[in-house]
Amino acid sequence: MKKLFVALAVILSSATAEAQKQPYQYVKPIIGTAKMGHTFPGATVPFGAVQLSPDTDTLSYEMNGKYNPDMYRYCAGYQHADKTIVGFSHTHFSGTGHSDLGDFLIMPTTGKLQLNPGTADHPENGYRSAFSHDNEVSEANYYKVKLDDHNITAEMTTSPRVGFHQYTFPKSEESHIILDLMSGIYNYDDKNVWTYVRVVNDTLVTGYRQTSGWARTRTVYFAMTFSKPIKNYGQRNYDDKQVYRGFWGKWNQTKNFPEMAGKRMRTYFDFNTTEGEKVKVKFAISPVSQENALLNMRTEIPGWDFEKVKREGQQSWNKELNKIAVNTLNEDDKVNFYTAMYHTFINPTVYNDVNKEYRGLDQNNHKAENFDNYTTFSLWDTFRALHPFFNIVQQKRSADMVSSMMAHYEQSAWKMLPIWSHYANENWCMSGYHSVSVVADAIIKGVYKGDPNAALAACVATAKKRDYEGIGAYMDLGYVPAESNGTSVSNTLEYAYDDWCIAQLAKKLNNTAVYDEFIKRADNWRNVYDAKSDFMRPRLKDGSFKKEFDVLSTHGQGFIEGNAWNYSLYVPHNPEELIKLRGGKARFSKHLDSLFTMHLPDEFFADTEDITREGIIGNYVHGNEPAHHAAYLYNYTSTPWKTQDRVRMILKKMYRPTADGLGGNDDCGQMSAWFIFSSLGFYPMAPGALTYELGSPAVVNATINLENGKTFTVKTKNQSNKNVYVSKVLLNGKVLDRKTINHDEIMNGGQIEFFMSAKPTTK
Amino acid sequence: MKKLFVALAVILSSATAEAQKQPYQYVKPIIGTAKMGHTFPGATVPFGAVQLSPDTDTLSYEMNGKYNPDMYRYCAGYQHADKTIVGFSHTHFSGTGHSDLGDFLIMPTTGKLQLNPGTADHPENGYRSAFSHDNEVSEANYYKVKLDDHNITAEMTTSPRVGFHQYTFPKSEESHIILDLMSGIYNYDDKNVWTYVRVVNDTLVTGYRQTSGWARTRTVYFAMTFSKPIKNYGQRNYDDKQVYRGFWGKWNQTKNFPEMAGKRMRTYFDFNTTEGEKVKVKFAISPVSQENALLNMRTEIPGWDFEKVKREGQQSWNKELNKIAVNTLNEDDKVNFYTAMYHTFINPTVYNDVNKEYRGLDQNNHKAENFDNYTTFSLWDTFRALHPFFNIVQQKRSADMVSSMMAHYEQSAWKMLPIWSHYANENWCMSGYHSVSVVADAIIKGVYKGDPNAALAACVATAKKRDYEGIGAYMDLGYVPAESNGTSVSNTLEYAYDDWCIAQLAKKLNNTAVYDEFIKRADNWRNVYDAKSDFMRPRLKDGSFKKEFDVLSTHGQGFIEGNAWNYSLYVPHNPEELIKLRGGKARFSKHLDSLFTMHLPDEFFADTEDITREGIIGNYVHGNEPAHHAAYLYNYTSTPWKTQDRVRMILKKMYRPTADGLGGNDDCGQMSAWFIFSSLGFYPMAPGALTYELGSPAVVNATINLENGKTFTVKTKNQSNKNVYVSKVLLNGKVLDRKTINHDEIMNGGQIEFFMSAKPTTK
Repeated sequence: MKKLFVALAVILSSATAEAQKQPYQYVKPIIGTAKMGHTFPGATVPFGAVQLSPDTDTLSYEMNGKYNPDMYRYCAGYQHADKTIVGFSHTHFSGTGHSDLGDFLIMPTTGKLQLNPGTADHPENGYRSAFSHDNEVSEANYYKVKLDDHNITAEMTTSPRVGFHQYTFPKSEESHIILDLMSGIYNYDDKNVWTYVRVVNDTLVTGYRQTSGWARTRTVYFAMTFSKPIKNYGQRNYDDKQVYRGFWGKWNQTKNFPEMAGKRMRTYFDFNTTEGEKVKVKFAISPVSQENALLNMRTEIPGWDFEKVKREGQQSWNKELNKIAVNTLNEDDKVNFYTAMYHTFINPTVYNDVNKEYRGLDQNNHKAENFDNYTTFSLWDTFRALHPFFNIVQQKRSADMVSSMMAHYEQSAWKMLPIWSHYANENWCMSGYHSVSVVADAIIKGVYKGDPNAALAACVATAKKRDYEGIGAYMDLGYVPAESNGTSVSNTLEYAYDDWCIAQLAKKLNNTAVYDEFIKRADNWRNVYDAKSDFMRPRLKDGSFKKEFDVLSTHGQGFIEGNAWNYSLYVPHNPEELIKLRGGKARFSKHLDSLFTMHLPDEFFADTEDITREGIIGNYVHGNEPAHHAAYLYNYTSTPWKTQDRVRMILKKMYRPTADGLGGNDDCGQMSAWFIFSSLGFYPMAPGALTYELGSPAVVNATINLENGKTFTVKTKNQSNKNVYVSKVLLNGKVLDRKTINHDEIMNGGQIEFFMSAKPTTK
Repeated sequence: MKKLFVALAVILSSATAEAQKQPYQYVKPIIGTAKMGHTFPGATVPFGAVQLSPDTDTLSYEMNGKYNPDMYRYCAGYQHADKTIVGFSHTHFSGTGHSDLGDFLIMPTTGKLQLNPGTADHPENGYRSAFSHDNEVSEANYYKVKLDDHNITAEMTTSPRVGFHQYTFPKSEESHIILDLMSGIYNYDDKNVWTYVRVVNDTLVTGYRQTSGWARTRTVYFAMTFSKPIKNYGQRNYDDKQVYRGFWGKWNQTKNFPEMAGKRMRTYFDFNTTEGEKVKVKFAISPVSQENALLNMRTEIPGWDFEKVKREGQQSWNKELNKIAVNTLNEDDKVNFYTAMYHTFINPTVYNDVNKEYRGLDQNNHKAENFDNYTTFSLWDTFRALHPFFNIVQQKRSADMVSSMMAHYEQSAWKMLPIWSHYANENWCMSGYHSVSVVADAIIKGVYKGDPNAALAACVATAKKRDYEGIGAYMDLGYVPAESNGTSVSNTLEYAYDDWCIAQLAKKLNNTAVYDEFIKRADNWRNVYDAKSDFMRPRLKDGSFKKEFDVLSTHGQGFIEGNAWNYSLYVPHNPEELIKLRGGKARFSKHLDSLFTMHLPDEFFADTEDITREGIIGNYVHGNEPAHHAAYLYNYTSTPWKTQDRVRMILKKMYRPTADGLGGNDDCGQMSAWFIFSSLGFYPMAPGALTYELGSPAVVNATINLENGKTFTVKTKNQSNKNVYVSKVLLNGKVLDRKTINHDEIMNGGQIEFFMSAKPTTK
């Protein structure tokens, strides 16, 4: 009896706390920061240009002349298992598998000035510091940590374009704030091209950092201001030739010399501090100029009220997260839900200044007249669920993202839409031309209000760029031949889906010629299907299939980030025909069963990129994207309840509320978007279509507050972790006798009710 | 009798030709291109941003890890004795002794594509070509040469911001136009920081070149357009790491790939040409952006009429040169006169785009609202005579130059006026802070219309920058102590003169406090005068003079580009007191005689920079600037006729109408400005004063057409090469019984008449 009371008390008090708790308070940015999640624990506002976060290491791409595989772990700059923090830098990707950025690393220190970062084993030999997770707080738009080596408490928050640091120092006449211009993520030894620092007055510093990393030609400008005057400042230049030349020693360039420049440079700013004195730093960035960085700072954070900025940023998270009010079976599910939602709203990032100026792909400055310009388009990942998610809850931003892609197209010397682009650069990463999926989906769903015919023309131009990754051969042969490149099957399958998107868009715009051309191309997936092996398979120019073929391996088999098992399911726009071709519903259902249950030997796992062992279920790789729709394919077999079962299993296994809770790279929010959709009970199998596949909701109920003022509510009956099967669905009170719902049914507002059961409805 | 007729016929025909010849036709840009003149023979309009000229070599600062002294000869890119041309680049200094620039070298070739420049000995091993002066034409704003190795005739002309190339090709299916982004003048091996080239369409290419040379942080943007479509194009990148990374071979980046970037890159553009086909290239530059470069091009040269652009540029020269209509004793004198005038109107250069935008010293972009922004201020040289010359014949530009200096000051992190600045950079070269002389002179002479008090404040701030080159010690001790730096005596003497300028400006503005402070500082020259040796001499902190002292050597004696003999005369603002201190008029006159007649042993000449043996007369070094006023000092002794004699001798010896006609670096027009003033019979000994010293005119007569619509005419009676002495001077018909004229007497218009004689007037 006592036990019951205690339990009840716990439930009640937690319910009360629950009632008071706002969505942002469920966000745990630390989720995904261990192992392969590649998220970061630092501070950002939704889609913020500044993403200010601790870097626990910043390894070089090369070590002793060789590729350094460890560097891969630091795509977001932070690994949860690490014991030291190098400093706090202002730009990060969230969840990527390749990286860049890590600009403008700031580190407060005390004692003798040390301008080298030191090593993880011996932080005392450099400016880095040991830290403990016990002294670490990571919230939406707030990060705090104690830097043990320096006895400094570091806190940070942000506005969209400004990082706000607050350092609580001990009493010291040797307090320093280091700005390391050399530090960066995925830091090729020669990634820095040039850095420039100008001490405007005793509290204001401006400058820029120009790099050639993943983005080949990239400059980020900054303006930094201190809450108290600098006592002394200086720099160390690690590239002798880059100081002033012909200078004849007129100045001491290393100390209190107000213009510092070079390729490899670290700067410092000295202060006297009293015990517990807070020294604050505002650090604004701009893609355009130092002046714009300063304008961003003065516009977004005119004052010095750290708590206010933190609060406002957290309220902006609340506003975004409140777009889905959710009830879950337990607190962990809610943490997972809002953290996933948080992760979907980190990338792409705003890439224009408060005056709307930005640097374009053509390296000219432009003004985003009627939109906000966004960057960081990890499209091979995010076309699947992230952009479709935006088309429900972030329509304004989604339209702006399409405008940004169209601007990219206009500025492109290749006249192509983005493949994988960031910071006024195309990096050409991954397969396909999936911006056409994003563009088509946004237009078909009525989200993008720009000229649809211009958008269609851009899609067509991109899809017909003959000299890009086998497209010419694809157009001639109906598939990318294996001779073209090592990812010819991925290319073919993805091009075919993208072509289907173009056809759908053309259909909407009554452009018959384009429709006819591309609906035909949309069928090209058939051309890499090898009936003999029942897998998609590399095909040679002469029409024969490549002999050597391993259906489990990821490397050298014509695929990218996936093996034949996973990729051979990739016909999202035509599952019926795929299933027909692969032996019909029953056979296909068993094939899917095998995928989820077979054992993938370690040797094959080992060469599967970007995931931990936990990122796979059988041979189903959730940590990479190609099979993200796979669980929903059961809907097209005679065993749709298996979709419900698999989805709930994936939700449970792949997403846990811990630092190592993500089974693979979050990939700029794609993994998280999958979680949100699937938790709500539906999923966009083929963006460009107006339908969503029904699965099995994991929420108890959820209300989507749409930008059009309407609400769409997901309700469940008998929800539990065991009742994963859906026995009945009511849409606005009427039985829904299909396995899909339509986009309009969501956007018009209403209610969908899932009746849950422990047993599948097998009829 | 026959002989007489022939002579008469020659005179008459030459007189007729003379009558038809316009001033620009007397300009021989080739003067000074041999040995130490460091001028360039290429095409430019007055003060043009583009100065398009052949480079006969572009040597590296270092060869095999050591300083390469030969490189010094290529400050302007061209040495007349060379037998090959590497190509044609768009920016050059005129007459400097240190260098930079040489941006965007273009070379047309035929045959097998060769992207390396080859060597002077073996031009056939690279793209460079042999040429002959017989096939070379060098005029104001027009340069033509036959490239023997390629059978191509190259012609070029310019507008202020655009170079216009016209290449006449032979019939070839292998015609190329190479754009070498690596080439540059004073090309430190790593001077390139980044280069970027974008093929916008089949006739338009844009991009930029970013360097860290003498200017530490410098970017020049370009837009280039061809008169016919490119057949193919491509690049070779000599720095493997700087191509796209993570690219996985999706494209061939070396050919027809429209975005090229890297630190060390050469690009080419291929054409088919028919026999005698002219392929034209317009190449615009901008300090701000590719877009602005394109705007400059479209604004200044919208069409393709080469002859029209050439003609307009030459007419713009005519307009400037017509500001002084001159008659001379012979054609050579006229060639010398108009070529000198041409050389005075080359630097500084316009440094804003047609829309008035420019990059500031703060590396931000600015708009020059009410002025044209100029760059390339070689002030240690040009404050002496060039800027004073502008204050007579280029008042509008001179005012703009002061505005440019004030903008520099506003943008300066040091809050200093320019020392030696170019392309949004301060390079800190040479001694003194002579922009205060330029500013004071322009205000005192009523040329600068901006806020004079702000200008005075800028002068004072510059002159009180304690941590710059010994100024702090100078303020404390009254001289720069020898311990401060190696040029302490030059510093002291030049600061004292500059301080006098500030005092004069303060007086004009009725600022007594500043006047009092600086008129006192103006006397500091006395503090480095060593009565024992009768020379200015390095002085130690303790007040004693440095023991080791060599009055003939230029190095290690406390001077820069001058020895004690030359520098000890440097009190231009107070010759009376200098002469008094140095033993009175008679003794001083003999001292000057010694200067002009003594023999400077080779060992001392050898370490005198920037001049040939012809650049000195006795121990008087005209090839460098510190003693440029020396000949006029006789005016303050009892032997003023010696000024007349020396001046005429210097005019004859130091300026000849040949490639090797200049005895030292033209120094951005200072040497030429000395020539113009002295040829006209007067010279600004101390800019900041309203007086000019009278010398001995070398012209027969000259009319200065002032911007205020008035004219000031110099007339001579009995002028000849022997009649170098002035027996009488009439100013507006009245006898002038002083050895100076005033600025107002010139600017109010009128006539000065010199009566010449073979014998000095010794009374």
